Amino acid sequence: MSRVKVADESCTVALPAALLGERWTLLLLRQAFLGTRRFEDFQSSMDISRSVLTDRLALLVEEGVLRRVAYEDAGTRTRHEYRLTEKGLDLYPVLMALRKWGERWMQPEAGPSFTLHHRDCGGDVDVRVECATCREDLTARDVTVRSPR
Amino acid sequence: MSRVKVADESCTVALPAALLGERWTLLLLRQAFLGTRRFEDFQSSMDISRSVLTDRLALLVEEGVLRRVAYEDAGTRTRHEYRLTEKGLDLYPVLMALRKWGERWMQPEAGPSFTLHHRDCGGDVDVRVECATCREDLTARDVTVRSPR
Repeated sequence: MSRVKVADESCTVALPAALLGERWTLLLLRQAFLGTRRFEDFQSSMDISRSVLTDRLALLVEEGVLRRVAYEDAGTRTRHEYRLTEKGLDLYPVLMALRKWGERWMQPEAGPSFTLHHRDCGGDVDVRVECATCREDLTARDVTVRSPR
Repeated sequence: MSRVKVADESCTVALPAALLGERWTLLLLRQAFLGTRRFEDFQSSMDISRSVLTDRLALLVEEGVLRRVAYEDAGTRTRHEYRLTEKGLDLYPVLMALRKWGERWMQPEAGPSFTLHHRDCGGDVDVRVECATCREDLTARDVTVRSPR
């Protein structure tokens, strides 16, 4: 049984919003994409309480966004780390769209804490909304809503 | 003074996450992009309490995502409606990325409640993460992180 409370059972914005519409969840995903995997590393990088972190990690595992993987350091008991699943990795465009907006509208005075580059050519990372048919760039004004029922 | 609590003052994911990482805010923006402008219409379309809606609308106005515009119906006192600003319209890719992910991973059994189409050619709406230089599609694995400082 999903713990995500559904505001609108047939809306594909409302469903992910119910899962992701929470600051700690988005920041936890940011850290996961930056390579963080262990509980202690999430905690130290996010300034989050242990109980909130435990809760949000459990929710993301339950929803199939993260998976829990056992690992063992020499001389310690078995511990678990958290890795993005395919479903989790597929959230990259959401984080990148959020980042692009943040860079334009909420740029901190000190400049960004890190920059992102295409591994192959070094180019900047961009997010585009486009038409799947004609590939034109789309804004909200270029889009119409249809009811399928 | 911004009401957004900043988790990490120099991260352009953390800053918008602090504003948007809340389910009602995301759903309110969804409604705004669908054309909703008036308090009563937001309320009836979202199943949200008046006090929460009042608070979230005020936050989005304060942050410059919505603007409050006076209107007058015949025989009634002046009221206000809420319209997306340029900063608000620029959030479209965030909502579209969330929707694309929802369509792949959280598709409701009944199918989507509405579909979106390019006004000119009728094509589907797509969101892509790509390299701004070579225009190749990018996943998290194609991207490296650099610290500018």
